[in-house]
Amino acid sequence: MSEQNTSAIAGPVLIIGSGLLGASVGLGLRAQGAKVFVSDVSPTVEAVAQDIGAGISVRAEAARHGSSETQPAKVLTEQPQLVVVAAPPDVTAALVIEALEDFPEATVIDIASVKGPILHEVLASGVDASRYVGTHPMAGRERSGPVAARGELFTSRPFVICRHDAARAESVRLAQTLGVELGSTITYLSVEEHDRSVALISHVPQVMSSLLASRLQETPLYALGLAGQGLRDTVRIAASDPGLWIQILSANAEPVVQTLYGVRDDLERLIATLENPTAPGARLDIAQLMSEGNAGVARIPGKHGGSPTAFAHLTVLVDDTPGQIARLLHEIGELGVNLEDLRLEHSPGQPVGMAELAVNPNEHDKLVQDLTSAGWKVVR
Amino acid sequence: MSEQNTSAIAGPVLIIGSGLLGASVGLGLRAQGAKVFVSDVSPTVEAVAQDIGAGISVRAEAARHGSSETQPAKVLTEQPQLVVVAAPPDVTAALVIEALEDFPEATVIDIASVKGPILHEVLASGVDASRYVGTHPMAGRERSGPVAARGELFTSRPFVICRHDAARAESVRLAQTLGVELGSTITYLSVEEHDRSVALISHVPQVMSSLLASRLQETPLYALGLAGQGLRDTVRIAASDPGLWIQILSANAEPVVQTLYGVRDDLERLIATLENPTAPGARLDIAQLMSEGNAGVARIPGKHGGSPTAFAHLTVLVDDTPGQIARLLHEIGELGVNLEDLRLEHSPGQPVGMAELAVNPNEHDKLVQDLTSAGWKVVR
Repeated sequence: MSEQNTSAIAGPVLIIGSGLLGASVGLGLRAQGAKVFVSDVSPTVEAVAQDIGAGISVRAEAARHGSSETQPAKVLTEQPQLVVVAAPPDVTAALVIEALEDFPEATVIDIASVKGPILHEVLASGVDASRYVGTHPMAGRERSGPVAARGELFTSRPFVICRHDAARAESVRLAQTLGVELGSTITYLSVEEHDRSVALISHVPQVMSSLLASRLQETPLYALGLAGQGLRDTVRIAASDPGLWIQILSANAEPVVQTLYGVRDDLERLIATLENPTAPGARLDIAQLMSEGNAGVARIPGKHGGSPTAFAHLTVLVDDTPGQIARLLHEIGELGVNLEDLRLEHSPGQPVGMAELAVNPNEHDKLVQDLTSAGWKVVR
Repeated sequence: MSEQNTSAIAGPVLIIGSGLLGASVGLGLRAQGAKVFVSDVSPTVEAVAQDIGAGISVRAEAARHGSSETQPAKVLTEQPQLVVVAAPPDVTAALVIEALEDFPEATVIDIASVKGPILHEVLASGVDASRYVGTHPMAGRERSGPVAARGELFTSRPFVICRHDAARAESVRLAQTLGVELGSTITYLSVEEHDRSVALISHVPQVMSSLLASRLQETPLYALGLAGQGLRDTVRIAASDPGLWIQILSANAEPVVQTLYGVRDDLERLIATLENPTAPGARLDIAQLMSEGNAGVARIPGKHGGSPTAFAHLTVLVDDTPGQIARLLHEIGELGVNLEDLRLEHSPGQPVGMAELAVNPNEHDKLVQDLTSAGWKVVR
């Protein structure tokens, strides 16, 4: 961590809410040398955020001046240039409004994962909203709290900025600077575009994964023992925190439910088809659902924004012993081949697995040849 | 490939249907030195299977005797000890019945992914079903045809054997020998247990993934550009072949639809909740769905059959350059640490990624320390 301030944000930054995301923002900005204060409703969370280097605790700053004050506005002697509200969605708007009132010169940014309801509440409050900009750094972890924070959490991840008509250019620029300093990829969307987008790419997938995983509650264990990678991948995000998702789904209910209507229609149609699977047209109905799924998944951009089908795949059989995969990847690296993707596949109770590798198509054949020559069990 | 017959299957094996799965069975048995014949309704598929070493083409064998016959029963001079029917589900029962009639000494096994309807058709046909055993080697690839075949396809994968009351012990033993020679893990289930199990762990996940992916058809591209690993994992299997899934879902419609009723009920409840997200009890309803998802996913056994929560995770920041991941894994191997799982995470348009590693909990802290000392950017 550099002590020199190379940050483009000259003034102090105040982070309100110093859990996983707030503390990660703090760590990211501190790494650029910015002066950061952290504040949290929980004294412990605030203290841990300071301990891991995310910024100066507002309570600690107060104590330095012999005060037991906990409100940033009453503690900070220097006005923050930027306030980042990194609190749960259901309290975000209130904290944004309070910060706009407390710090009449500061730009106030929030990073909650739903944007429309917050903007509307801020605008409706009558506060000076020209200094408010909503953002959504699209990253998270399956754990929470400042202990899980890391400065690189937002590196290479999309950072959505939701401009609004009342926002001043200077505040929007500051939001962009924040995204850049966190190493993110900036995208500008309206709050409506943002909320509809995350409904489709994040909130409905979460619902579908949870709906499916819920069915596993009564599945016999012998059946679960047969589970392969398909099931594991499909239900992975069903392990997410219910507390957070209550807030997200409540706040973004309308775009989510609009998409779920489409799911319900397709599901009703499939159920009717499967209730009478030998009826004329039944097979065509199933084919149509499957083909529509094919068409949908094909539209997701691949890594590096490339076409999802642009890579060639090969599979290598690996023993499950220390260093085996390393040795494989070392040899691939020695051959100068860049691995575009890697997936390990295992089965319960067995010490052998498959490494599925994705590479550029023009490197595929030679790699298969070279690895085979080197004694690896390679399959296309 | 050994030319010495170390296979426990002494007599010839006839494989009917030499696509991906049939040719993979052939390759696996040939690797043990068994004598294998391959047959397919398509002359090309049969010829390719022979070319890749999966066995002797029945048509080629006929030609060797100056005949243009294609029916195995009219070509083979030696009776097969084992016939493996590896055909699409909708023709499997007919081929099993024909093989039982053609080869009155042979054990006939099928490997289709739905078992009840096939057994019932075989029993109802009046043929001698005591030599029939249904099996399901639970493996597959996203590609098809004998070119994609590999002898290790079933290695470490579950191999379900569905005994039935009329099956003779000798034939069941032969099915088990086949599974063992393919390197699989044997599981005995009734056809009902099997079909209900695969509905839950394979067919319904496929349906849910396709239903979700179908929604992406009209998603704006800017929204898809924000997609993270959660969406990608959830819709991965939606890229599967519609032709195969028409057959699977038709054949196993009843257990699938029973599970989909539960999905529909939960979905209806969630839609009603999200239509009125501020109503009393709405948040509790969402919490319940999410928690049920948590409970379901927690029941899936981890790799090696261990508890799904038994591993500790750490994340390492890696540049997307050749050899970076290799170097990382090499160092992990040098430290004697066995990697339990590995996931690469990337974002479109960016050259940096995260490697999420899973290790035994007692190796976690030291590994974090050692990798950090070695200059890696490690986060818990």
